[in-house]
Amino acid sequence: MDAKVLKYIEDHRDEYVELVRKLCQQPSQASTGEGIPEMIELVVSSLKAVGAEPRLCETPGNPVVYAYIEGENNKHTFGFYDHYDVQPVDPIELWDDDPYSAVIKDGVIYARGVADNKNGLATKLCAVDAYMKVYGKIPCNVKFFVEGEEEIGSPNLPYFAEHYEDLLDCDGFNWESGWKEPGGAPEIHLGNKGLLYVEYVVKTAKMDAHSCNAAIVKNPAWRLIEFLTSIKDPKTDRILIDGFYDDIIPPTEDDIENLKQDNFDEEGQKEYLGIDGYIGGLTGLELLKKNYYMPTANICGMVSGYIGEGSKTVLPGCASAKMDFRLVPGQKAEKILQLLKDHMHKNGFDDVQLIVHSYQDPFRAAPDSPFVKAVYSTLDELFGTPVVHYMVSGTSPMPLFCKKKNIPAALFGATSTKANIHAPNEHLEVESYIDEIKMIAGVMEALGKLD
Amino acid sequence: MDAKVLKYIEDHRDEYVELVRKLCQQPSQASTGEGIPEMIELVVSSLKAVGAEPRLCETPGNPVVYAYIEGENNKHTFGFYDHYDVQPVDPIELWDDDPYSAVIKDGVIYARGVADNKNGLATKLCAVDAYMKVYGKIPCNVKFFVEGEEEIGSPNLPYFAEHYEDLLDCDGFNWESGWKEPGGAPEIHLGNKGLLYVEYVVKTAKMDAHSCNAAIVKNPAWRLIEFLTSIKDPKTDRILIDGFYDDIIPPTEDDIENLKQDNFDEEGQKEYLGIDGYIGGLTGLELLKKNYYMPTANICGMVSGYIGEGSKTVLPGCASAKMDFRLVPGQKAEKILQLLKDHMHKNGFDDVQLIVHSYQDPFRAAPDSPFVKAVYSTLDELFGTPVVHYMVSGTSPMPLFCKKKNIPAALFGATSTKANIHAPNEHLEVESYIDEIKMIAGVMEALGKLD
Repeated sequence: MDAKVLKYIEDHRDEYVELVRKLCQQPSQASTGEGIPEMIELVVSSLKAVGAEPRLCETPGNPVVYAYIEGENNKHTFGFYDHYDVQPVDPIELWDDDPYSAVIKDGVIYARGVADNKNGLATKLCAVDAYMKVYGKIPCNVKFFVEGEEEIGSPNLPYFAEHYEDLLDCDGFNWESGWKEPGGAPEIHLGNKGLLYVEYVVKTAKMDAHSCNAAIVKNPAWRLIEFLTSIKDPKTDRILIDGFYDDIIPPTEDDIENLKQDNFDEEGQKEYLGIDGYIGGLTGLELLKKNYYMPTANICGMVSGYIGEGSKTVLPGCASAKMDFRLVPGQKAEKILQLLKDHMHKNGFDDVQLIVHSYQDPFRAAPDSPFVKAVYSTLDELFGTPVVHYMVSGTSPMPLFCKKKNIPAALFGATSTKANIHAPNEHLEVESYIDEIKMIAGVMEALGKLD
Repeated sequence: MDAKVLKYIEDHRDEYVELVRKLCQQPSQASTGEGIPEMIELVVSSLKAVGAEPRLCETPGNPVVYAYIEGENNKHTFGFYDHYDVQPVDPIELWDDDPYSAVIKDGVIYARGVADNKNGLATKLCAVDAYMKVYGKIPCNVKFFVEGEEEIGSPNLPYFAEHYEDLLDCDGFNWESGWKEPGGAPEIHLGNKGLLYVEYVVKTAKMDAHSCNAAIVKNPAWRLIEFLTSIKDPKTDRILIDGFYDDIIPPTEDDIENLKQDNFDEEGQKEYLGIDGYIGGLTGLELLKKNYYMPTANICGMVSGYIGEGSKTVLPGCASAKMDFRLVPGQKAEKILQLLKDHMHKNGFDDVQLIVHSYQDPFRAAPDSPFVKAVYSTLDELFGTPVVHYMVSGTSPMPLFCKKKNIPAALFGATSTKANIHAPNEHLEVESYIDEIKMIAGVMEALGKLD
């Protein structure tokens, strides 16, 4: 990678750290609206400072800040997706410092948003800045997309993707950031599961009644259980919705090869979660295949009747459960939703109310696309052989930006999985932050070198 | 019934109403201890005022106040079970008046405890008082048992029944009170279901995790559901524990005849609970048979994971459910508990933690016992043909006092099912209160006339 740019980044560490601190010192909670207008101004002025002419793309909610900067090679474009909103700071009493002070202690910055994901915007701004300062130009075009509602589920991102579709063209996206443990190998994530999040509500009476009625009055908790066991057999873990598995594209030989290099820490994760083992006693390759390539019907929560201390003899009037289906390549969220509705109707569960919270298709970026190759070679050069994950078990809104135009997207960056995102004492090592600036700058350079 | 005593009761209505008001004006919450010592003093002084020499029977908790008064016919004894503690008054803001003011409006007394169950103690005191005042003696022996922890589940009543067993001998108990709607027929309840209240806890991890782990990490909610469906088939409503139904004594022809006169208000109860109909579309006799003579496995409450608004993609670390089994004649709570434990072990559910909250056997009083006959004829004479319920679907601690010595017990009295017991604006009509005094006095008289 360009030595002058690398040196410039190193020489201006303090200035760049100040930028992310400044972004973090501005509260910006989408859930309450706190600080959002001020944050938008800050994003706009920060983009202007690196030579962009940002545009506010209005949506029914907070606007998406968009900015395009043309590069020396203007045939290739690096897309940046980040968000300017952050999680709430509660429980505030568990923070060691003011979450908006962005205090630095022992080379670590502590602030709400410093790892999720104001670092993402900051590192991209710094990478652009470094090239601008050294060469007065950047190697390839870049497009910033900075949304303001990620932490409340990006409710207006579908609207944005539809109404500003023309803006989305690019060689590939960096989605927020990614993981590289301090001293560890960089990671590249190229795909993720889809999601269908629903809630089931069974209401049998207008109130909870005395449980002496239980012999003759229907119990909604039992009815919910009857319904849930029609969705999945808890014993076999098999989802029982007709057609649910039909469209799944099983992992290819290449996918399996990729899994064989996966660095999933079986023991570490067991210890972290405090579990004895994995479902079915799976380990190794079989565990990874299930983790990344098998869908789920997971009960996120359920509640009915009396849940306080001790005993109360009550016959509940209502029962509900929240469920997320994680979907794998080949499955389409809308189709699965339809299959679920058909299942409910066909099996006589019309008394179960279905609430659809959100859905998102699964997504995969082609590992052999020029963009992904550029990311790989850059990270390889800077930090050693990357660990490439074709799939992760989580979900992202990447398909909204990428699916229609078949644009690749990659999560990569230098945050830690132990950065306490969404939790008190969110933090990021200064060293990791600087590494991430180098990654972005390096990929810009690599894209600039493409034909 | 004795005309002079009836007249005395009528003539002293105001004085008798003052007595129950005085008892209600003294707070006495077992849950907090508020007013308990003062209440005990008040119970003692009230008993002394009618000629008794009360004794405090110590238990590990609040004492049971016991008093014996010998009757003219000292071969027969009427047992009174009541409690001097009351439910909490919360939500206090929903009361129209101070719950301890015992205000009278339009012939109705409003107070915490006025219907559950300070009326029970008061009407018995008044019945004794009326006889004492008219004749200087009472027709039969009476025994007062006034406990102080009923509203917290009578945790020390088993201790009392065991340690003061000798005191319990009598012809029969009036258990607290009973129901007679204003202008309606008196009711007599002679039996009730037993209860086994348990809680199941499934803990699979030390915390809730991100639901992207759901493909490989066990979900305790699903495991709980697997377990619960091993307890009961929600589709058929059949309890699947081996031996669960073995000891049930099915209703006899006499029981069925009794059911045929039952005044269960099918439509009214449907409207009250806001339900469309009863389990299996049952009505009439079949509905009553199931209600009174079939056991239940009822989910009183269950909870797991995220139960707030909206969606959260979480894999719960813990799931739990509270269940009450209502038991019917023939079943024994301790045996059912053992069958449940066996079931869990035999079917591989040792990972499910079982917490036993309480248990109580079912109970039946013989309808042809002299005591029950005396109750029947008294109520018949005073208020017209009683409705006799051989069984109710609820549970009481009656077996503690009655089972060993095969003593009958009957719930009868003149409170309303709409008296808001355990709720704001608990109330009792003055007229009903006076009726209840007459009932007690009448049964005393009838017992006094026995050989």
